[in-house]
Parts: sequence; structure tokens; C-alpha cells
Amino acid sequence: MLCLVGIGLYPGQLTLEALSALRECEKIYLENYTSSYSQGSIDKLKELTGKEVATLARRQVEEELTPVIEEARTKKIALAVFGSPLNATTHVQILLDAKKMGVQTKAIAGISIFEYVAFTGLDRYKFGRTTTIVFHGENYEPESFYDTIAQNKKAGLHTLCLLDIQAENEKMMDVRHAISLLEMIEEKREESAISESICIGIAGAGSDGSQIKAGTLEQLKKFNFSIYPQSLIVCGKINEKEGEALRALSDLQ
Amino acid sequence: MLCLVGIGLYPGQLTLEALSALRECEKIYLENYTSSYSQGSIDKLKELTGKEVATLARRQVEEELTPVIEEARTKKIALAVFGSPLNATTHVQILLDAKKMGVQTKAIAGISIFEYVAFTGLDRYKFGRTTTIVFHGENYEPESFYDTIAQNKKAGLHTLCLLDIQAENEKMMDVRHAISLLEMIEEKREESAISESICIGIAGAGSDGSQIKAGTLEQLKKFNFSIYPQSLIVCGKINEKEGEALRALSDLQ
Repeated sequence: MLCLVGIGLYPGQLTLEALSALRECEKIYLENYTSSYSQGSIDKLKELTGKEVATLARRQVEEELTPVIEEARTKKIALAVFGSPLNATTHVQILLDAKKMGVQTKAIAGISIFEYVAFTGLDRYKFGRTTTIVFHGENYEPESFYDTIAQNKKAGLHTLCLLDIQAENEKMMDVRHAISLLEMIEEKREESAISESICIGIAGAGSDGSQIKAGTLEQLKKFNFSIYPQSLIVCGKINEKEGEALRALSDLQ
Repeated sequence: MLCLVGIGLYPGQLTLEALSALRECEKIYLENYTSSYSQGSIDKLKELTGKEVATLARRQVEEELTPVIEEARTKKIALAVFGSPLNATTHVQILLDAKKMGVQTKAIAGISIFEYVAFTGLDRYKFGRTTTIVFHGENYEPESFYDTIAQNKKAGLHTLCLLDIQAENEKMMDVRHAISLLEMIEEKREESAISESICIGIAGAGSDGSQIKAGTLEQLKKFNFSIYPQSLIVCGKINEKEGEALRALSDLQ
């Protein structure tokens, strides 16, 4: 059986059933390129499960997973995933591939960054489509995340923006970089909907040193978000209740 | 300190940090009206924590919580919440009230139904605003949930519909009832956007007997969703990848 196990955002977020599934498996692979722990280490995961943990890079997950699925035909094999599994299409594809190969599968939910959007004081029900702000590179300057935010804003909705990770270069995007990309696109398009919005930076969600800070883009650029992973919420229409909660929970001035 | 602790959808979904927080608290109150376990019992929670658990009804949470907050001024008190805290505005209000009273607070994330939307095969990023389908009563026939679904559909987005609970009458809405309300509104408005959509019923998310079934409203009405809580997803535009995943994971014909 191939068991996709969500391990949350740090070792303390392992659920009892995830822990017991990992302990029962003969081998644990860790998908190590779509996110990372916000605190604690993979050694802690080894200690808790009493198992070796083999980390897999992007290429190994996306192109070379067939041997792992084959292994799961006769053994209990775990693929551990930061946060919750199946949020990324890669994980859904793994499940489909395993099913096609006739290998039994199971998925166990974990705590993901989505559980933290209401911790800012915003109404969780008022979020629109989610997007990822991606690094620009040579001949690669996508702006689709901007369009998603703009569409949500038009409908009065908030947008959770996940920030890109380039695990192969050990690069995780920070709030400041995400803001610079949004500002660059606004300037080019001569628009100002986002630069006039209240935004919220989240760093190291849920961990001991976690930071949640709401403000204008100008205010957030000056704030030192010092831990990872980081995310950015662009607020849509903020009602009175949310305003009060943002001041109390996200330090909105 | 008042600690709002998310306890997930069943006892096995307790995280290590939630368990340790509950064990450290002198008293555990359980907010018992916005949801319930999908499997397992509150006795299991007592056994795991080694503590008594006092359940609170709606009125006690919404109108009479001041003594509990006062108690938290000098003791560690936990307010356990099914799923994750702060998703309901009631919980945010409790946190704000405690802060105003100068009582220290903490919130610990848990696994909520939102972690399961991608388990259906749908792309988690493509969900619009969430809504709750509520029971109609005498002189109380709200249709705002219909408008939310319709707006999401127009933008091609999926809608997670949570289903109403009347804890005081021990009533939890099931998928069939939710469908009947949607059909009644469509008929009244002479519209057909939702009755022509693919929908997904989810019963007892994550538990051993959990059921996930996609189909037309006609197909879902005939399906026996037998455990609780139940939710309904109304799909927006389904792309090719999602279609394949819905057939494999949600039994779409």
C-alpha cells in the first residue's frame, strides 16, 4: 500500500493517525520540494517515527516515482508530504498512477497553511480562488497570479497567495519579494487595486516565532519577516468585524 | 490562559501539540454545537487527555462564556473545537473578548473539512467563497447560499457547502436535504445552473466509513449517504485532469 501522509507544518502537528501510519510503514519517503517545516527538523520526524526518512527531490517525485509505487505493491510504503496531501496536483497524479498500476492507496489529511487564514482575523468563508506568486526568470514572467487576485478583489474576496519555492536552488520566496512582483505588475499595467489594499504577511505559520502582520504594502515592505515559509494575503472588502479582528490578531494599525 | 484547541474531525486527528496542550490545561470545555466527530466519541477524548470534558451548548458559548474566560485569568483552560478554531466567527469573538478582558490567549490549528476538498479530485486552488446551506423554517427561508454558489459557478469556481447543524434539536442536515433546498430555489427562480452541475457529497470525511460520491443531483439523491457530518460541493468548470481524478477518487461515472 502507498500511503500519502500529511505531516503538517512542523513535527508537533503530526496527528495520532499520521504518526501511527508512519510507524507501521516499512519505508518513509519525504516529498521535499513543495514546502518545508516552519520549525523543527526532519531528524525529529525520524525520532518520532523510529524510521529512516529518504527525502525526494522534484525530479524524483515527478519523473522517477514508478519504483517507489512498485515497492508499495508488496510493502507498506509512506510518502510523507508537508501540510496536507493532494493539495498539489503532483500528489493527485501519484495517487492516480498508483491506482492505474493496481497498487492500493490511502491518503491521510494534515494541517496546511489554509488552516491559518482565519488566524489573521479574516472571515475564512470570504476567500476566493487561491494562487501562487512565482519567481520571474529569464523569458518567464507570468502574471496570472495578479489576475486571480484582481478577480477576487472585484468580487470583494480575499486571496491567499502561496509563495514559490525553488528547492533545487534552496530559495523560498519572501513577502518582500512577492510585494515587489505585485508592484512591478501594477506599475506596468498602470493599476493600483492591490497597492491600495490591506495585505497580510504570514511567516512560519503556527510555529513559536510565527509572525502575522497586516498593513499597506509600504508598511509590510518595512517589516522584517524573518522565518519561513511565508505567505501573503491580499484582502478584499473588510467588514467591521474583520477590521476589529485584524487589529487584535494581525496588528493592523 | 485560554487555549482554543482544534481537535480535528475524530480522535485520531488530534495533533501531538493539541494533545499536549489539552493535557496541560486544568479544565477542558468542548464547544459542541457547530460540528461533531465523524467517528469516535468524546469518551475517547477524555481517555486520551486524562481529563474531564465539559460540553457547552450554543447559548453557553455565545452568551455565557464570561465565567470561563474569567477562570482562564489564573488557570490554563482549554476550549476544544471540532475541526480547527477561528473558522467560525463565534470563536474569533471569544478570542477578542478574552483579549479585551486582559486574559492571555492561544489558538492551535486542527484539521477541518477544508482539508478534504482536494481528496475528491478537484483542484483545491479552484474553490471560490464557502457557504453554509441552512435549514428553512417558518418565516425563515434564506437563499444567500444559492447566490454564493451561482456567483462562484459564473467564475468557473467550485463551492464547498457546509451543511447546517441544529445541535439543540440533534439535527444535522444531510446531502439529500441540501439538494432539495437547492432544487426548490432553482424551481422558484426558474434557473438550472446548479441542477445541471456535477456535485459531490462527502459524508464522515476521513473516517473509516467515509463516503465521497460525485454525480448529478439526480444520482446523488439516490445514493445512501449514511454517516455524518455531511457536506456538498457544487462543481464549477471541471478541467480534464480534474475529470480523471473525479472518476478515480469520487466514483464519477
